[in-house]
Amino acid sequence: MRVPPFKSPIFRQLLEFKSNTYTYILACHKTGEAAIIDPVVDTVSRDVQICRDLNLKLLYGINTHVHADHVTGTHKLKSAFPSMQSVLCSKSGGEADKYVSEGDVIKVGGLKLEVRETPGHTNGCVSYVEHFLKAVFTGDALLNRACGRTDFQQDDYLIYVGHNYDGIMQTTVWEEKTLNPRLTKSKEEFVLFMKDMKLQYPKQIDVAVPANMKDGKGHE
Amino acid sequence: MRVPPFKSPIFRQLLEFKSNTYTYILACHKTGEAAIIDPVVDTVSRDVQICRDLNLKLLYGINTHVHADHVTGTHKLKSAFPSMQSVLCSKSGGEADKYVSEGDVIKVGGLKLEVRETPGHTNGCVSYVEHFLKAVFTGDALLNRACGRTDFQQDDYLIYVGHNYDGIMQTTVWEEKTLNPRLTKSKEEFVLFMKDMKLQYPKQIDVAVPANMKDGKGHE
Repeated sequence: MRVPPFKSPIFRQLLEFKSNTYTYILACHKTGEAAIIDPVVDTVSRDVQICRDLNLKLLYGINTHVHADHVTGTHKLKSAFPSMQSVLCSKSGGEADKYVSEGDVIKVGGLKLEVRETPGHTNGCVSYVEHFLKAVFTGDALLNRACGRTDFQQDDYLIYVGHNYDGIMQTTVWEEKTLNPRLTKSKEEFVLFMKDMKLQYPKQIDVAVPANMKDGKGHE
Repeated sequence: MRVPPFKSPIFRQLLEFKSNTYTYILACHKTGEAAIIDPVVDTVSRDVQICRDLNLKLLYGINTHVHADHVTGTHKLKSAFPSMQSVLCSKSGGEADKYVSEGDVIKVGGLKLEVRETPGHTNGCVSYVEHFLKAVFTGDALLNRACGRTDFQQDDYLIYVGHNYDGIMQTTVWEEKTLNPRLTKSKEEFVLFMKDMKLQYPKQIDVAVPANMKDGKGHE
């Protein structure tokens, strides 16, 4: 069997072009155990291929929240990895194999994904902190120079968000604390700003949310 | 002046959606000196903003080769960073402030970009190896599971390519040596395969190549 000769954890950032969603694959190079964060149903075959190429054992399919703009790939991934468990926040109201809340840790070989509840975008939004990678996966709780909140201590941690429409793939805690216009507002100003954005009704929401509340079942 | 509190080199991967070109910003966290690899004219303002946000001094605007699918951003970047030098391979036939060839090293603060000549896609294609980041920037000499060649020693080095049309942002030397179908062919088979691909005439080539031979001048 091919075993990749990597000496440090495996990390891949992937993009789904239709909804500009970022998907992440993280794996322990010693055990081959892996997790995928925010997979999209349309790109599951690509992601399965990468896991197979790298000889990974996919333990967890994590959704940072119930997405409104795309159907999750977690259910479809189980065809290829039947023992994979889907993961959601217990406050999300959605269906999953495993529920997490503040302070929980998801172990993937030597990697440890710490759960931080970061509600706002949805009630059940969580972010994941991984200290070895010095990385935070924020889903949609925080976007580059846009909506969200930070309460992480290490300013140089890389932030990996759920979307970006300018092709920017990474940011840092320091940049968002310093340069994100929404994070310097008072709570009242922030609420007014968000209410006043006059955002369009999301195109995919009527399909995506019901599907994602059921872990993507029926859309594989 | 805002100075980011980063403790390790700065690295950003960026995407230009029209030509699916990857642009990279690398910087030394101690000196703030920076280089940009394969900037695109359409996304220069985004890239300038990132450099300013991070308080970077852009020393080099590097093109891995004379691109045929987009106009380089190197000339336009000089409006924001007048002391920036554009960089090309001496064998490219194109215009630049600084020419490099096999074995040259471009120093960006504590980072060292080693030049490896990797012709094939064009005569003047070079790749850059940075050992601290354990990364190789291949431009179009090597694409994920597609055209190119590898002669790097460390199999776990991350490969950062010039394009990918599936939203995959990183690969490794090991994967391409093991899984890239073109790299297991004989030289003769490879030449026949490439000749037989019946590729379309590139849409942007008549605009992009003449512009890029002159460092993007006249298209800023």
